[in-house]
Amino acid sequence: MNRPKRFLLAEDELPRQWYNIQAEMENKPMPLLNPVTKEPLKADDLAHIFAAECAKQELDQEHVWIDIPEEVFERYKYYRSTPLVRAYALEEALGTPAHIYFKNESVNPLGSHKVNSAIPQCYYCKQEGTTNVTTETGAGQWGAALSYAAKTFGLECAVYQVKISMQQKPYRSFIMRTFGATVEGSPSMSTRAGKDIITAEPNHPGSLGTAISEAVELATTTPNCKYTLGSVMSHVSLHQTIIGLEAEKQMEKAGEYPDTIIACFGGGSNFGGLAFPFMRHQLKSGSEKKIDFIAAEPNSCPKLTKGKFEYDFGDSAGYTPLIPMFTLGHTFKPANIHAGGLRYHGAGPIVSQLLKDGLMRAVDIPQLESFDAGMLFARTEGIIPAPESCHAIAATIREAMKCKESGEEKVILFNLSGHGLIDMTAYNQFINGDLVNV
Amino acid sequence: MNRPKRFLLAEDELPRQWYNIQAEMENKPMPLLNPVTKEPLKADDLAHIFAAECAKQELDQEHVWIDIPEEVFERYKYYRSTPLVRAYALEEALGTPAHIYFKNESVNPLGSHKVNSAIPQCYYCKQEGTTNVTTETGAGQWGAALSYAAKTFGLECAVYQVKISMQQKPYRSFIMRTFGATVEGSPSMSTRAGKDIITAEPNHPGSLGTAISEAVELATTTPNCKYTLGSVMSHVSLHQTIIGLEAEKQMEKAGEYPDTIIACFGGGSNFGGLAFPFMRHQLKSGSEKKIDFIAAEPNSCPKLTKGKFEYDFGDSAGYTPLIPMFTLGHTFKPANIHAGGLRYHGAGPIVSQLLKDGLMRAVDIPQLESFDAGMLFARTEGIIPAPESCHAIAATIREAMKCKESGEEKVILFNLSGHGLIDMTAYNQFINGDLVNV
Repeated sequence: MNRPKRFLLAEDELPRQWYNIQAEMENKPMPLLNPVTKEPLKADDLAHIFAAECAKQELDQEHVWIDIPEEVFERYKYYRSTPLVRAYALEEALGTPAHIYFKNESVNPLGSHKVNSAIPQCYYCKQEGTTNVTTETGAGQWGAALSYAAKTFGLECAVYQVKISMQQKPYRSFIMRTFGATVEGSPSMSTRAGKDIITAEPNHPGSLGTAISEAVELATTTPNCKYTLGSVMSHVSLHQTIIGLEAEKQMEKAGEYPDTIIACFGGGSNFGGLAFPFMRHQLKSGSEKKIDFIAAEPNSCPKLTKGKFEYDFGDSAGYTPLIPMFTLGHTFKPANIHAGGLRYHGAGPIVSQLLKDGLMRAVDIPQLESFDAGMLFARTEGIIPAPESCHAIAATIREAMKCKESGEEKVILFNLSGHGLIDMTAYNQFINGDLVNV
Repeated sequence: MNRPKRFLLAEDELPRQWYNIQAEMENKPMPLLNPVTKEPLKADDLAHIFAAECAKQELDQEHVWIDIPEEVFERYKYYRSTPLVRAYALEEALGTPAHIYFKNESVNPLGSHKVNSAIPQCYYCKQEGTTNVTTETGAGQWGAALSYAAKTFGLECAVYQVKISMQQKPYRSFIMRTFGATVEGSPSMSTRAGKDIITAEPNHPGSLGTAISEAVELATTTPNCKYTLGSVMSHVSLHQTIIGLEAEKQMEKAGEYPDTIIACFGGGSNFGGLAFPFMRHQLKSGSEKKIDFIAAEPNSCPKLTKGKFEYDFGDSAGYTPLIPMFTLGHTFKPANIHAGGLRYHGAGPIVSQLLKDGLMRAVDIPQLESFDAGMLFARTEGIIPAPESCHAIAATIREAMKCKESGEEKVILFNLSGHGLIDMTAYNQFINGDLVNV
């Protein structure tokens, strides 16, 4: 009965470096291209909008390990390590012989993994003399994390939140304001791009496309202001590898090694963060494929399972560089599911290459299956998961039920990327039978 | 720069017993009285509405240490120990030489310390053959915790939530429903008491008084149904001592010992939970008074600072036993502040006796000061505190600022009893300047 449930690291066991998978991939991610010249971008090109150090990390295919700066580490210590938890109660409810573990990023400041990259992005901006940061956000997890990180480094922060999301989930914009950020519903009257959209369509509900356009415009037209973002790009996944590096040490404390690693998938930051450190042992051709890596996406936005691998824009307006990605097309309009963080048309360059090379796979999950999974997880493990994380749980349950059929005692590790306390209207709709598959 | 920030206990360091301060108090708490006969109540009298083991614990003035049952401990391991955190960033913002620590109960399932007592109360009910539990809740922290605990033990759970709170903070009732509880706005049509109130006043907004009446009626008229509650009573504080027992070991790891211990105060469960284990070293007359214990209450509900010590009812309708308490009178109507958990007219029997005997003191905090403190804490430490916990933070800041004047390096420990993510409308009102002192 007295079985260990949670595994934590002492401060002196915390990782001091991030893992840069690009440096060890046999087939490197294809370069970002200038959309006009079709020439590969250099770090200097990216440094116009990003912090210079982030631009450098984005293209770094040389250094396997990147030191975590001391001031970033100090802030990681506020909440890391996050717990690795054995989900005994979920296992028992499923009647599965599988051993299910989850990495609990929901106890982080602001309730999700996003803060792991918000802190270093703001740190580098501060170091380089930037005084203002800006970004876009949909449901608001990234915007909230950035607001906190900006505040701790004394930076001003302006967030463009998709207008319809801001109206549907007002709590998240209140959170950003609590951390001192300025929050504008996008499209707004504060940028040229926003004004043009509103002029053409006064009641435009906004989209990540409009919000990215406004944030990039603000960054490029404001002195000492940089643009930041919460997923897709390779430097964001780099920062998130703190998750997997911790988990690897924690699994060792648990005396087990994962057979299967699962994370939900929007742009790739929480998936890469957990998966890449484990994947490094099976990157080389001919190396033993011990772990099955599974990205769980919504079936209403299935870029990994049904998209094409090609160069595409990162935003719907076509302002970004061309990115090599599995994509549904940058004009794809995802259905209005509650997992706002997964409503993105493309995957980041690293994951796209790994998927193409067969080093990972993807599954797609209908909305109702995701909430069924989330409800069971809440009722067994006591944590209400974010709608995004519900997709990882649903995929985990699928694998655990296969083990029940086969009798295999597989070890499954998934990432609980965030909690769902700001998304309770979604749960209420689900309980009332008002949610549908889309 | 590399200074330890968080202190955690390994599973084998977790406390295995609760501390029963009643057994070591020189002046015991005065007995609960039957309101008709004025005779002291016996455990059997209480066991009609509470689990028998809880009734026994309520009156136990003999056993100093009470074993935590194995099945309760298993569930504690899901989330305990909670972190003890050194609030460096808050200290720096204040410019105080004080060392500020907080015990972070906000990362618990359901976001507050309430689950620490919900689990054992449900466990004892289950052991004794009870199939249904019920309770009242205001803002909903306790109701949410009970819903989760009931679910893990397979008990049905019915919560009467103050109707106006249910309408103002719908997310919390959604949370309870996610854990399978039935939630009724009180007054409801499901009880005699509720019907009578609605008949007399169709638009009655409800109160803790109406909700207690309904829950007690349900418990006494339903087979195999027991009443539970989240504060005031001595067995609830007993269960909460897990907080202070952990904190004592964690302070030792930090290499410090508190000069001051602070918690917010509603009925006394989070205050007693943190304070009692430390207080045990200075209970005896003549023992050295090392620690200054401070309960922080809202100035709009000042039972400790301005109430009278006398026998009073626990509910506004006068259905409960007579309780020896510092009280504002059981018909006192607290102002509608956002710290719903502190809107209670009386203090529990143990704390009332300790206050009378000078073993602790109390301060009262205006609403705006509490939110000022909460905003500063959020922006420095990255956690948005519950409106209740903001009172503890405000009292901590007062003490820390005294240290700044005097130059004393006092060690202050406070309890962060819960997070404020369900209370974001309150923060939004504060930021907009729409909150007032009441």
